[in-house]
Amino acid sequence: MTRTMKVAAVAQPGAPLEIVEREVPRAGAGQVVVKVQACGICHSDSLTVDGTWPGIEYPRVPGHEIAGVIEEIGEGVVGWEAGQRVGVGWYGGHCGHCDRCRRGDLVLCENGMVPGVSYDGGYAEYVQVPAQTLARIPESLADVDAAPLLCAGITTFNALRNSGVRPGEVVAVLGLGGLGHLAVQYAAKLGFETVAIARGQEKGDYARELGAHHYIDSTAENVAERLTALGGAKIVLATVTSGKAMSDAFGGLAVDGKMMVLGIADSPIEINSAQAIMGRRSVQGWPSGVAADSEDTLAFSARSGVRPQIEVYPLEKAAEAYARMLSGQARFRVVLQP
Amino acid sequence: MTRTMKVAAVAQPGAPLEIVEREVPRAGAGQVVVKVQACGICHSDSLTVDGTWPGIEYPRVPGHEIAGVIEEIGEGVVGWEAGQRVGVGWYGGHCGHCDRCRRGDLVLCENGMVPGVSYDGGYAEYVQVPAQTLARIPESLADVDAAPLLCAGITTFNALRNSGVRPGEVVAVLGLGGLGHLAVQYAAKLGFETVAIARGQEKGDYARELGAHHYIDSTAENVAERLTALGGAKIVLATVTSGKAMSDAFGGLAVDGKMMVLGIADSPIEINSAQAIMGRRSVQGWPSGVAADSEDTLAFSARSGVRPQIEVYPLEKAAEAYARMLSGQARFRVVLQP
Amino acid sequence: MTRTMKVAAVAQPGAPLEIVEREVPRAGAGQVVVKVQACGICHSDSLTVDGTWPGIEYPRVPGHEIAGVIEEIGEGVVGWEAGQRVGVGWYGGHCGHCDRCRRGDLVLCENGMVPGVSYDGGYAEYVQVPAQTLARIPESLADVDAAPLLCAGITTFNALRNSGVRPGEVVAVLGLGGLGHLAVQYAAKLGFETVAIARGQEKGDYARELGAHHYIDSTAENVAERLTALGGAKIVLATVTSGKAMSDAFGGLAVDGKMMVLGIADSPIEINSAQAIMGRRSVQGWPSGVAADSEDTLAFSARSGVRPQIEVYPLEKAAEAYARMLSGQARFRVVLQP
Amino acid sequence: MTRTMKVAAVAQPGAPLEIVEREVPRAGAGQVVVKVQACGICHSDSLTVDGTWPGIEYPRVPGHEIAGVIEEIGEGVVGWEAGQRVGVGWYGGHCGHCDRCRRGDLVLCENGMVPGVSYDGGYAEYVQVPAQTLARIPESLADVDAAPLLCAGITTFNALRNSGVRPGEVVAVLGLGGLGHLAVQYAAKLGFETVAIARGQEKGDYARELGAHHYIDSTAENVAERLTALGGAKIVLATVTSGKAMSDAFGGLAVDGKMMVLGIADSPIEINSAQAIMGRRSVQGWPSGVAADSEDTLAFSARSGVRPQIEVYPLEKAAEAYARMLSGQARFRVVLQP
Ligand SMILES: [Zn+2]
Ligand SMILES: [Zn+2]
Ligand SMILES: [Zn+2]
Ligand SMILES: [Zn+2]
Ligand SMILES: [Zn+2]
Ligand SMILES: [Zn+2]
Ligand SMILES: [Zn+2]
Ligand SMILES: [Zn+2]
Repeated sequence: MTRTMKVAAVAQPGAPLEIVEREVPRAGAGQVVVKVQACGICHSDSLTVDGTWPGIEYPRVPGHEIAGVIEEIGEGVVGWEAGQRVGVGWYGGHCGHCDRCRRGDLVLCENGMVPGVSYDGGYAEYVQVPAQTLARIPESLADVDAAPLLCAGITTFNALRNSGVRPGEVVAVLGLGGLGHLAVQYAAKLGFETVAIARGQEKGDYARELGAHHYIDSTAENVAERLTALGGAKIVLATVTSGKAMSDAFGGLAVDGKMMVLGIADSPIEINSAQAIMGRRSVQGWPSGVAADSEDTLAFSARSGVRPQIEVYPLEKAAEAYARMLSGQARFRVVLQP
Repeated sequence: MTRTMKVAAVAQPGAPLEIVEREVPRAGAGQVVVKVQACGICHSDSLTVDGTWPGIEYPRVPGHEIAGVIEEIGEGVVGWEAGQRVGVGWYGGHCGHCDRCRRGDLVLCENGMVPGVSYDGGYAEYVQVPAQTLARIPESLADVDAAPLLCAGITTFNALRNSGVRPGEVVAVLGLGGLGHLAVQYAAKLGFETVAIARGQEKGDYARELGAHHYIDSTAENVAERLTALGGAKIVLATVTSGKAMSDAFGGLAVDGKMMVLGIADSPIEINSAQAIMGRRSVQGWPSGVAADSEDTLAFSARSGVRPQIEVYPLEKAAEAYARMLSGQARFRVVLQP
Repeated sequence: MTRTMKVAAVAQPGAPLEIVEREVPRAGAGQVVVKVQACGICHSDSLTVDGTWPGIEYPRVPGHEIAGVIEEIGEGVVGWEAGQRVGVGWYGGHCGHCDRCRRGDLVLCENGMVPGVSYDGGYAEYVQVPAQTLARIPESLADVDAAPLLCAGITTFNALRNSGVRPGEVVAVLGLGGLGHLAVQYAAKLGFETVAIARGQEKGDYARELGAHHYIDSTAENVAERLTALGGAKIVLATVTSGKAMSDAFGGLAVDGKMMVLGIADSPIEINSAQAIMGRRSVQGWPSGVAADSEDTLAFSARSGVRPQIEVYPLEKAAEAYARMLSGQARFRVVLQP
Repeated sequence: MTRTMKVAAVAQPGAPLEIVEREVPRAGAGQVVVKVQACGICHSDSLTVDGTWPGIEYPRVPGHEIAGVIEEIGEGVVGWEAGQRVGVGWYGGHCGHCDRCRRGDLVLCENGMVPGVSYDGGYAEYVQVPAQTLARIPESLADVDAAPLLCAGITTFNALRNSGVRPGEVVAVLGLGGLGHLAVQYAAKLGFETVAIARGQEKGDYARELGAHHYIDSTAENVAERLTALGGAKIVLATVTSGKAMSDAFGGLAVDGKMMVLGIADSPIEINSAQAIMGRRSVQGWPSGVAADSEDTLAFSARSGVRPQIEVYPLEKAAEAYARMLSGQARFRVVLQP
């Protein structure tokens, strides 16, 4: 006898999210089935909904910010057991045999998979994922809070800790949305002198509530000049999609400062070579992280009290929730609950 | 007309600290005279009192944890003015022409000076120091609190931030004395998972008050095993003088973990090569820092609330205060006030 | 119909190497069978011969310096084909699910395997190994030359390139045996100012032939003093097994210098804390590398002309060849040819 | 009685270089007078000739690639003596009191001086410079060869060694002019797999003579694609002034690859964020180095045989030599000899 479940699927590129019935998957070799308790809606889910990611097979269930409980364990899976609370993020498995994998650089696997893109994701009551993708969720972290940390959280936390920044230095967060409102919390809880940069004066108070020591309204102030007046930012975490905003902030880096680029920009980032040379300034891209990085992110979040600000919708209202995310009005992450 | 001041001087190696009258120094070229508001007593002052540092000229006034106000500025000094609050630590000036100086490695200058050793130090109402040695003291930091941060504080803060540790990792502090009680605070305020290691169960509560998440009583527990059970320490800040205690803790390092050695040990540190190899573990020494590092230390301490626990004595009781420091009973730094 | 092959096996701990007939293995899932063309004899093979590595199942065929040709490919193996020239070293496969593996630190897998220890190794005409373990051998590199590079070569090359050394600095190689005579060549070909350190004056000429710019006879000279006179070594590659020799060399490190420990020492390495602190000097262990590291080692060796000095024996004389290695008289690596 | 000397001076911005008679300077405090044996002509000398560097006092003698012999030593100078062979490059002294200097970052001194810009430079028979600026010239290095190494040489050598590149990796040099023809030699002598990139097929043979393993003609081939086919460049040393050429090469970086920007570009460098993120690729500026860096550059050049290709002119023909440099036809550095 097979069990059925509800999922929110996209029938073809551009089609709406529809609730459909499916068989609950059975865990294949190396795989686990997770009972989904919460799944964040990420702007990247539009890659699946719109079909802009090449080679997606439809119908497809989006969702790569999954928090749940292990339901079933496939053959050959070691180290996990049914009932454990686990999360899955953008990293959806590596191949093990490409050059990147052979060097242990699992996050840049040339054949890397993404939940909700390469296989059905977390807009569902159950999801099947490779065991490699699992991150333990600490007891004190609620499912709806853990979900966005598995993509927006890890991306900022992991970029920051791998940026080469030294403890106590000045960290600026460019953008105060889904990623930025987490990045500001991480920077503050990690003891950095934290600068939030966003559009509009009204976000200043919120930034300070999140722990920012300084706020820059990029619509009214010269970002580079303000940062320079603060001594310059050793790290700018660029969480926006505006290439121009990134280019404008580059001049606000301190000597030896680095801009970490976390999101695909709508235009090239323009680097002034004199500014780069006369301060050994740099720009580097950073691609999220693997399951163990998520685990570290969740552990730190649990320990330090970092939490996303979320709006929760039932799975049945996936289409509405997705539209809410797209509207840019959500504060700041939308989460589905089956 | 010359002014006079009181100092606590050592007439010859091994002689007691005596209060004597001196002329207030006038600032020479490149020098400033500082009116001392507080001066910490450091165990290293025994190098002067006992004469174990080679080549000291006596009588000598000890003291290299100086907080005060600029009184007079010598010829050619740029960037400072009378009335500024400043501190001076172990770094007492560099030569500018040795190989280390030519490479910008000022703290390891081959002709480096130390206040209270190379010239008269801070057990005094006034002290003359090279302008290079000055660190700005933030307004919110009291003189008696700033003084110990200029040696015990900077040594731990600067070692930690230059250790290569990544934000959020496990940092263990070996020893809970003058350096250790500050190191624990820094580690905790910087968001590290902080482990304090000391002798005796009774210090556990205090360690937790300082922010430690874990406490290990090295008289009752196996330090390496306990650290390993916590996942291993990425950094061990070794603030003790026992070579054996350091050797014992080495096995508690995480993979890629590093022990930072901050103090001269009473015996060699013994490294187990298999433990080193099978985890890429390492041991490195760290020599305090220059004035700009002190400035960063003071700024972070002011911003985050890190403060030393001190016992204050008037300058007149320098001998008594020094004996108190030597007794090992002080909690944790003794500070003189002129 | 099954094929048979000759192997040199150890029947039980302490037993002699005996030539026995075996079935040629068939490649299991994820495995390949390699026709062995050459296999180096490493001192670590004594772990198998003497049974000092825990948990070895006997009879066991030693050998982890394998150069050969892919004979057969198992199910699920991607990226390899029969006829390719490949090598296998100390790294014999990782589990994929332990904490180290999840972080991409494959060489320190908690369940890591070693050819000739965990499964039958290269003292044989054919060997079955996990596909993960394979490194491509460049065309210009002979099998008998490639074999020792897969253990002695990669260990030194990989440690050196990951030591943090900057191009052109002073690199000292402590020991001039199997590892050391390769390390000297790598250091010289990589443009480092290369210092060889060994016992006896007579090795000086050979060291210079290998590319060393300086030679120190540790039986007649003070190693630390000589290194210091050369400006200090930024890196000491410690290829010896004498803990005392390593301890003696520590004082010859330059400021910011590091000793890389490559082999298990017969006694603890003793670190003088004052030397460590007053130069930020350090000691770190390094554990070889994975197949991709071997591939880089072989590629660089082929391109730059680095070759081991070897003595070749037929597989039938494995016992004699092993004794030769043990004698310490071989110059410098003994290689078996089936 | 005063001695006189010939210099080639610029009377005002835009004026021609004219040979005029001057008094030989006497060494002031902290200064030395150097008898010039050779002085390279650098494109940056146009900052003085054209007056595009702000605040230059005229008449001014250009020249910051000075090789000579110490003639006279000023008061307070330690560590140098008359008769020593010394060189001076772009770094012309630091202030000692700005924030950068206090942190030992002497090359980025906020009040840094440049010979031939801040004071009279090396187009002269004698020049007075701060003692800080002196680099020892190895015996085996001719003056005319040392001169260009003090600017074009150090800039490439120092950028390369501080780029974080690991020994043996792929290094690409973008541009094959004054800097590039030295960078290719350094990369090759340091054991890197070296790629030269320039305009036109005809430079390929020369690149290979300099040690390049690969040559890319950027007028006929897609630079990023060719580099990617070689596995990607871990480091691109960008020695050109074309922002477009740099932007085009960015896509040819390997995973974790970095472009080091050494020269002011004529337009912003455009970074594709997706390429940056999906390979952790980065761009960083690098500003030459101090006297000790020059000393290391000269020592390595002497030891390894790196030499500039030069055209030598007598000082009297400074105007002609300068025009030759400007023409872009010189191969590759023009050097004046008094
Ligand atoms: Zn996402
Ligand atoms: Zn892969
Ligand atoms: Zn002290
Ligand atoms: Zn010095
Ligand atoms: Zn071996
Ligand atoms: Zn493993
Ligand atoms: Zn120049
Ligand atoms: Zn300066």
